[in-house]
Amino acid sequence: MRFSGLALKNLKPVIKVLPPGPLSREVVNEEYKLLFPPPRLYSIAVDSASNHLIKDLDGNMYIDFTSGGLECSLGHSVEIVAEKFGFKSQPLTSIDLERTTTATAVRLARRLTHLLKLKPEAYKLFFGVTLEDCVEVAARILEEYSGKRVFITTSHGYYGETSLCATLSGKDNPRREDGSATVIHAPAPYCYRCVFNVNPSECDVECVDFIENFIFENVVSVEEVAGVFIEPIMVRGGCIIPPEKYFRRLNELVEDYQITLIANEADVGLGRTGSWLASKRLGLKFHGVILKSSLAGGLPLSALIGESAVLNSVKYWAYPRRFHPTSCLAALQVIEYMMEHRIPENANKQGLLLKKKVNELAEEYDRIGDVRGLGLLVGVEIVENKLEKKSDSSMALKIVRECARRGLMLSVCGKSTVLFAPPLSVDAETVEESVTIFEGALGEVID
Amino acid sequence: MRFSGLALKNLKPVIKVLPPGPLSREVVNEEYKLLFPPPRLYSIAVDSASNHLIKDLDGNMYIDFTSGGLECSLGHSVEIVAEKFGFKSQPLTSIDLERTTTATAVRLARRLTHLLKLKPEAYKLFFGVTLEDCVEVAARILEEYSGKRVFITTSHGYYGETSLCATLSGKDNPRREDGSATVIHAPAPYCYRCVFNVNPSECDVECVDFIENFIFENVVSVEEVAGVFIEPIMVRGGCIIPPEKYFRRLNELVEDYQITLIANEADVGLGRTGSWLASKRLGLKFHGVILKSSLAGGLPLSALIGESAVLNSVKYWAYPRRFHPTSCLAALQVIEYMMEHRIPENANKQGLLLKKKVNELAEEYDRIGDVRGLGLLVGVEIVENKLEKKSDSSMALKIVRECARRGLMLSVCGKSTVLFAPPLSVDAETVEESVTIFEGALGEVID
Amino acid sequence: MRFSGLALKNLKPVIKVLPPGPLSREVVNEEYKLLFPPPRLYSIAVDSASNHLIKDLDGNMYIDFTSGGLECSLGHSVEIVAEKFGFKSQPLTSIDLERTTTATAVRLARRLTHLLKLKPEAYKLFFGVTLEDCVEVAARILEEYSGKRVFITTSHGYYGETSLCATLSGKDNPRREDGSATVIHAPAPYCYRCVFNVNPSECDVECVDFIENFIFENVVSVEEVAGVFIEPIMVRGGCIIPPEKYFRRLNELVEDYQITLIANEADVGLGRTGSWLASKRLGLKFHGVILKSSLAGGLPLSALIGESAVLNSVKYWAYPRRFHPTSCLAALQVIEYMMEHRIPENANKQGLLLKKKVNELAEEYDRIGDVRGLGLLVGVEIVENKLEKKSDSSMALKIVRECARRGLMLSVCGKSTVLFAPPLSVDAETVEESVTIFEGALGEVID
Amino acid sequence: MRFSGLALKNLKPVIKVLPPGPLSREVVNEEYKLLFPPPRLYSIAVDSASNHLIKDLDGNMYIDFTSGGLECSLGHSVEIVAEKFGFKSQPLTSIDLERTTTATAVRLARRLTHLLKLKPEAYKLFFGVTLEDCVEVAARILEEYSGKRVFITTSHGYYGETSLCATLSGKDNPRREDGSATVIHAPAPYCYRCVFNVNPSECDVECVDFIENFIFENVVSVEEVAGVFIEPIMVRGGCIIPPEKYFRRLNELVEDYQITLIANEADVGLGRTGSWLASKRLGLKFHGVILKSSLAGGLPLSALIGESAVLNSVKYWAYPRRFHPTSCLAALQVIEYMMEHRIPENANKQGLLLKKKVNELAEEYDRIGDVRGLGLLVGVEIVENKLEKKSDSSMALKIVRECARRGLMLSVCGKSTVLFAPPLSVDAETVEESVTIFEGALGEVID
Repeated sequence: MRFSGLALKNLKPVIKVLPPGPLSREVVNEEYKLLFPPPRLYSIAVDSASNHLIKDLDGNMYIDFTSGGLECSLGHSVEIVAEKFGFKSQPLTSIDLERTTTATAVRLARRLTHLLKLKPEAYKLFFGVTLEDCVEVAARILEEYSGKRVFITTSHGYYGETSLCATLSGKDNPRREDGSATVIHAPAPYCYRCVFNVNPSECDVECVDFIENFIFENVVSVEEVAGVFIEPIMVRGGCIIPPEKYFRRLNELVEDYQITLIANEADVGLGRTGSWLASKRLGLKFHGVILKSSLAGGLPLSALIGESAVLNSVKYWAYPRRFHPTSCLAALQVIEYMMEHRIPENANKQGLLLKKKVNELAEEYDRIGDVRGLGLLVGVEIVENKLEKKSDSSMALKIVRECARRGLMLSVCGKSTVLFAPPLSVDAETVEESVTIFEGALGEVID
Repeated sequence: MRFSGLALKNLKPVIKVLPPGPLSREVVNEEYKLLFPPPRLYSIAVDSASNHLIKDLDGNMYIDFTSGGLECSLGHSVEIVAEKFGFKSQPLTSIDLERTTTATAVRLARRLTHLLKLKPEAYKLFFGVTLEDCVEVAARILEEYSGKRVFITTSHGYYGETSLCATLSGKDNPRREDGSATVIHAPAPYCYRCVFNVNPSECDVECVDFIENFIFENVVSVEEVAGVFIEPIMVRGGCIIPPEKYFRRLNELVEDYQITLIANEADVGLGRTGSWLASKRLGLKFHGVILKSSLAGGLPLSALIGESAVLNSVKYWAYPRRFHPTSCLAALQVIEYMMEHRIPENANKQGLLLKKKVNELAEEYDRIGDVRGLGLLVGVEIVENKLEKKSDSSMALKIVRECARRGLMLSVCGKSTVLFAPPLSVDAETVEESVTIFEGALGEVID
Repeated sequence: MRFSGLALKNLKPVIKVLPPGPLSREVVNEEYKLLFPPPRLYSIAVDSASNHLIKDLDGNMYIDFTSGGLECSLGHSVEIVAEKFGFKSQPLTSIDLERTTTATAVRLARRLTHLLKLKPEAYKLFFGVTLEDCVEVAARILEEYSGKRVFITTSHGYYGETSLCATLSGKDNPRREDGSATVIHAPAPYCYRCVFNVNPSECDVECVDFIENFIFENVVSVEEVAGVFIEPIMVRGGCIIPPEKYFRRLNELVEDYQITLIANEADVGLGRTGSWLASKRLGLKFHGVILKSSLAGGLPLSALIGESAVLNSVKYWAYPRRFHPTSCLAALQVIEYMMEHRIPENANKQGLLLKKKVNELAEEYDRIGDVRGLGLLVGVEIVENKLEKKSDSSMALKIVRECARRGLMLSVCGKSTVLFAPPLSVDAETVEESVTIFEGALGEVID
Repeated sequence: MRFSGLALKNLKPVIKVLPPGPLSREVVNEEYKLLFPPPRLYSIAVDSASNHLIKDLDGNMYIDFTSGGLECSLGHSVEIVAEKFGFKSQPLTSIDLERTTTATAVRLARRLTHLLKLKPEAYKLFFGVTLEDCVEVAARILEEYSGKRVFITTSHGYYGETSLCATLSGKDNPRREDGSATVIHAPAPYCYRCVFNVNPSECDVECVDFIENFIFENVVSVEEVAGVFIEPIMVRGGCIIPPEKYFRRLNELVEDYQITLIANEADVGLGRTGSWLASKRLGLKFHGVILKSSLAGGLPLSALIGESAVLNSVKYWAYPRRFHPTSCLAALQVIEYMMEHRIPENANKQGLLLKKKVNELAEEYDRIGDVRGLGLLVGVEIVENKLEKKSDSSMALKIVRECARRGLMLSVCGKSTVLFAPPLSVDAETVEESVTIFEGALGEVID
């Protein structure tokens, strides 16, 4: 039940039950169980808002002279805006989350915990707007939890653009080395271009050994390590998909040394690999996991889900909550849709088809060095020739641009890997159409 | 003209004109003039999207196998989501901005430049999602432009929560000192609690002199300074409104030493002070200015508008574009609404009324130490008594909570300042109602 | 008893008593009580050494195939060198301090503790070579003791030249801002040029209040502070001598907030102010104090004397010991000489004479803005004129150069302060001669 | 010609020729050519000093009221001290190097340049007291020269103990990771324990490839690199001696990418490897080289010798000079002695003998995993057994302690490498005696 935007002239607030009323209290109590504990001024759960009025779950109406934490300078969901967008009713765009809460976020927390089969008491959630929000919060928690400042991660990862996140990302994607924390990069499990020159069949996971035998022995004591950040699949770094033994060894290392590990599933979480989480599919154990906008159908929303044990030991933690109610609502719809339509199964099925089709092309073309795929992520690494494996990034760009000219948008990741990342609801016909266009483009640009 | 979501079964892309078509090219060309130059794969301007299909301005339709840069894992604006939201048509939620663009952002850039009376060739824009996006981009630009790493700012400012932003914010709002950049804090122009114990009437702007005579003389050479960050009004730090002479002296300092200055108007930009920019109203000259979500009616959007001269000297700059088309569209509606309804004038008028009313109360109550206001920002500093001026933050909280119980939401900023920040479209009746409630609450909690 | 350098041909080591013998053990045991606990391989106390042979206190002789920790590549005190220097016997130049020890250092530790009237069980010593050794060790201890990384210090201090030390020193003397630790500078108690524009007679020690009211309130939480570094007299910063109330307030602050304070007496320790420590004379309470080369008559030696309570809580601490036996021996002679000749009393007496004479000149010359002195440190600040107090550094240089031409070497500190720092054994005649030359130089260069 | 300490009563300075006299000027002029340009107040070259009097080369005598830059608080070489030491005459202990100079340092600079066969106009010298002085100065120069902040070095190096130096050293020797500069560690060329599991005979210098293929590709752009620090032989890290092809590849890398490289020869410079420089012997090309105390027979002295081309491009450089005249004088004697006695030849000859003898033992003992030696540096790596190569550091300690009990001092470097580093003047008999003792100790402690 939403009240109409026409309430604009009703200037008087209406207090039906002394706030916080019972329905607000219920939401707030559940929030304390599910979400990272925020500082809060009122225990009021907002239902909806219009112009300068906020309505709580108990039916009270308030004049909002915080303007939604100064974000809604025209008040909430101002009519004229809603109309232009064609909204039938007016969803909340923003509320002042340091002062109030909304049942939507709590519902989404509950939904996600359940979906990912995490014990509700064992995990808590933090919602942010961007990937960087969650990475920075995770880093802050790890630093406070451990009392240390050094992070271990791999090359070829992507953690965002702020000063700290760019340092985690390393050189390839982003841009700057920074003193904000000490980040040490281990080689990524990029088997096609193994730093150790080892053939996959003879691989002893030297890239995890490197962490133990080189980094911990010579560069930094494990006692200085605040935590490990891992992308289970390094999508932007080149669609790098580690072998399963990589995760087995990494799990052992993390357990042996009692290190806290955060999995960054910004690009692969919620179904893309055929599982709800790539970590699950690949056997990576984490203490925290990060999800991003795919969660909310493209609206800005990110989530960090972490072990309560880690969180509860943090004495003082105060990154403000900053999710948008609209995004949370969209995320709930997205999850419902995915459940109903068995999206991960579709991703798996269409992904196998796509990979098979692309692999067939790979045999024909000396320019395709490697095909890597899991679920609806398929990376096609373009090289000068199969023997020498030299990256050819200008050829990769040519191919992608030729595809666009033929009506197929792809992207390039890593140095020269063409990335297929179709919507998870894609059907077989579209997959086949895309491979046909890709093949046409290859034929056109490769002489 | 939008195409219907029912196009789902039309699997074949349609290329009517070889991309990039003339309409796409026109947008892309204007974008180069108005926006910070992004890396881009295709020169395609997206019109709309549905499921896995993207339509460009020239009528071409593409299969999007980037899934909107992996953000739209169910494709674009998936029907079921739109329906639940009650969208009549389907706005874009996200597109892959590293590969395409949208005319909406370009239109918004043009609109903002015009609104703020900035010469189009002299300024360029960067759109982000959060405040932190813009502050981090500004810092990165200043560092590259100057080749230096030290920033000067004032205490009581708020610049966000990432590692770098929290360092800029200093202690009061956020939380951590960091080595990511050297930030030196000068005293804020907080006249009610002048660090120099100077009476406002005898003030020689010692707090700007401090930058010149103490910081530049003794702490860091001006040659090491990458730039200055200033909040024209430090809202979260306590609704601190500097006297005009503060900005006159600061302008002189910045000019004398040829320092680059960024004004952070996240909380005050776009009309709140009665002008489109607080900097304009208060006489602060900037080389860049940051706006935030109030821009888009509460949807996540931030903007950095900077002098082209600064930007064009930056050789390598690659923070990815990350605005959401929905937010840009909302921002265009917000600006149109504000123009039509002369919102700044209303802010000024209602602000004067609010300040007058609160000032009348201030005379009666010994607990009100100071009232500071400009436009629709009024801060009421709660103290133990007028003579000793000791902050009483628990009393401020009591007052705000009592107001909430009576149907008025306010917030506390700084240590003990109650903040009125009404929607800018507020009318006189609501303002008076709010002061009546506030007075009632004061009477209740003050014995 | 030293053995002759002629033992060179005696190639066989001689073990009279199984090492460590009783005399070695005695020294090593006392060392554990007096000095910061070092890692050590053998419990052997070296008596003397010649060429490749080392003799311990128990009369054992060893072949030294560590070459004195690789520092004595020609063996110890090689004959030819000693001869050229005119040494009668051969003092140790260096021994491998990670492996052995020498009674000289232990004796010096005992002597210093006694001289400064510190309870032997309450303090421990660290000997280094340079000022930087002691400042870096102190910082490392404070960081580990507190678990924090922020240091507070004043402007105008001098802490040396390494990356961390230069950051502590601030801009004036050294050269670079650095992220190695966060250093926050409070205004120095430079009363002649008070940042707060307060007359000394009305001074409420605003510069200490600034730490409490501005820095701790707004810039960094006191909970983040690892410690405070203070120069009791900022010699290189301009011979700045704080009033006694400064130290009273600072002591209170440090006690109220339970902060650890290190006094840097590199330039003023051991008698120059008329007391063995300037801190004692001025009433500054410290948890650690740093002394430097004046300790060893100009040979490289520095010392950090710290409360055992601070030190004993440091779990892991491993800056290697690095004093040179020659320097320790010289220091023992210096202290003996100073005691015998009542050097601090002489410093006080001649200092009063010098200050009186210079003050008489100050009355005559409008170019002398201020005279500051304590013991045998007198600073004469050269200005354009007494009224405007503008610094005139080129005039200060001219004066000092003219003095040199007349046979008197002085130096310039701060911006334009001429510094008299005579040897502490100076007599009245030489003091008067120096003032005569100074007066002559003033007459020559001032028109 | 030195004047007697009895001049104490001659209070009047004597100016025979207006300073700076011709002899002083000559020294100062040569100093500008040979040494890093210091700030200087007077162009006076000091000859000798006694008490408060300084005599320059031109025969002028000055009252020194700087007390040797506050280091000689009892004046220069005070009689009583000299007497106790048994000095026949009184060497300078310290002079105020920011104000004067001494011909000794200039002579030493000239001597060193000539000895190392460096073209005088192509190199300049900086003298410091400690290793850290030279490493910090080198880092500061590289940062200013390049405008970058990232350093590349290897694991197992040792660069000293200050915050920056400890970061360069990495974990094994020192102790802390720090944000003062970004240091990235490549694997050391430790062939016996190759990180890449490559047999020396099949080695393609993967550890240099790692810098190019992993670090520059993935961790940091080569454009961000300020320079490379290399220890030609990592003595403290385990007496690691790289194969010659390592340096050939490293030279290529440095040349290809135009990186500046500093060789740290603190432990191996001046003859220990049989050459004046280990870099020369091993074929490493450097832009700067660091020497340490072995230079001055164990007295504190360090030197950085760098290409003038690098230095002259540094606009502002102001680390103060800080050598001690006594140390410089000792260094001149040391060099003369080494030349006369052909010390490098002896190091080479005795080193071959020592290595041969130890290698014979190695064949007998399964506990000796590897013997590495060059000149008079021989490392004997102690393992559990030859097959598994597991380090046995407690056995290494046992051996070294048993040797001490038998009259031979050795040390342990790396994890479990026993280090022989005899004086360079050692004879064959002593070498053989040492191996006999070592063998006896092995027999005793190994069962």
